[in-house]
Amino acid sequence: MASYLVTGASRGLGLELVTQLAAKPVTEVRIVFAAARSSNPQKLEELAAASNGRVQLVRLDVGVKESAQEAANEVEKKLQGEGLDYLINNAGVMDYHPNGLEGMDTLDEVFHTNVTAVHYVTQAFLPLLRKGKKIVINISTTLGAFSKVHIYQPMPSPAYTVTKAALNMLGLQYAYKYKDEGFTFLAISPGWLRTDLGSQYADLPVEVGAEKTLDIIQRAGPEVNGKFWNIQVDGWEEPRGQNKNQYDGKEVAW
Amino acid sequence: MASYLVTGASRGLGLELVTQLAAKPVTEVRIVFAAARSSNPQKLEELAAASNGRVQLVRLDVGVKESAQEAANEVEKKLQGEGLDYLINNAGVMDYHPNGLEGMDTLDEVFHTNVTAVHYVTQAFLPLLRKGKKIVINISTTLGAFSKVHIYQPMPSPAYTVTKAALNMLGLQYAYKYKDEGFTFLAISPGWLRTDLGSQYADLPVEVGAEKTLDIIQRAGPEVNGKFWNIQVDGWEEPRGQNKNQYDGKEVAW
Repeated sequence: MASYLVTGASRGLGLELVTQLAAKPVTEVRIVFAAARSSNPQKLEELAAASNGRVQLVRLDVGVKESAQEAANEVEKKLQGEGLDYLINNAGVMDYHPNGLEGMDTLDEVFHTNVTAVHYVTQAFLPLLRKGKKIVINISTTLGAFSKVHIYQPMPSPAYTVTKAALNMLGLQYAYKYKDEGFTFLAISPGWLRTDLGSQYADLPVEVGAEKTLDIIQRAGPEVNGKFWNIQVDGWEEPRGQNKNQYDGKEVAW
Repeated sequence: MASYLVTGASRGLGLELVTQLAAKPVTEVRIVFAAARSSNPQKLEELAAASNGRVQLVRLDVGVKESAQEAANEVEKKLQGEGLDYLINNAGVMDYHPNGLEGMDTLDEVFHTNVTAVHYVTQAFLPLLRKGKKIVINISTTLGAFSKVHIYQPMPSPAYTVTKAALNMLGLQYAYKYKDEGFTFLAISPGWLRTDLGSQYADLPVEVGAEKTLDIIQRAGPEVNGKFWNIQVDGWEEPRGQNKNQYDGKEVAW
């Protein structure tokens, strides 16, 4: 009977996370707040319309502090005194610079969306999370792990890599600060997925990435606070694919 | 007979690095470009005036891309066809939020100075560095190392911590990209120093931090490309002081 909020819910992984959460029994998932900046795609509208109120659309521009606060106020009203159990910080952007660092001119804006916005949203929802299970998931990537950099070079998305490392450090700061209150801050790498962000060349269908990400989320608790986890996909336990990716379901070294 | 450029040279560690470089024999240090945004303090003016041209003041606002290019053009003229051997990306800022993440409202601006600006400056000086020893030093901090986070909590400077982790990842991206050209990108933690940034409560006088940082820089070469190094200070090989700092002269795990 848990409540969830997913940012970046209008497409890609966010939309699929909402879709799969809405398909779970109500004994597991009571309500899903699908937060997105602008107009919602037909699929999300239909999902909400057919959900008897279980899927609620929330307008949220994660990069605007006031928008995060307004979204939190709206969700608070809809929860009618209950807390929010899971915040899934999924919204994010990826840069594409074929020559890598040369010509990379989007560091500031990619940082704002991938890091600062997560800070805005998390701060705004903290009071509601305090009344729930206190679980915050940051959707990250092994591309942002220092332990994996040697695998992924050369990278055409240096701003993504740099800002996801920063996001991981932000999450770790949160993990230490709110540990004694019983919070869980967990970073998850959802795999390289066939979405607008991941491109058609990615390793996995978005449905698989979302399913495996939810597997991790639904068993997350304080014992994984301040950790970074990889999804587990059968057949991908060992490095394979064009980028030597690995989905072994294990903790990722920062 | 090497040439150096130090950013953030008007005060603190930057000013001390320039001072100590200028005091070395000309057989070691041919010329030092002291780059700073605005008016230079008397000490730097005097140093330049007394240096017979060995210390050259360069106007550089690291956060402005065009300023980085103009500074590179000016240095190119002054080097008269020679390359620049060492670029020391020292300019940086630290936030102070007594309650840590709560109220942290400077992430974007701290990121711009500590990370984006380093990218601007490094890109602008790459052509000159290619004609020199190709050594780029990013002044970082063990506070930005994932391996050390457990030591430093709670942190009143979360934006500094997050952005220095990002700087480390940026430097690592550079290290991989330019390795085959013979470049060395090395991050150094200069210690907690008694400067405006470090406060009067810091572990070490700035003179010691600068000296030990230069010890590392002057023996740096391609074998430490993509590494992160700590200074070595006698008596500080084991953790001590109010923040359990350690200056053991060893490689720092990211």
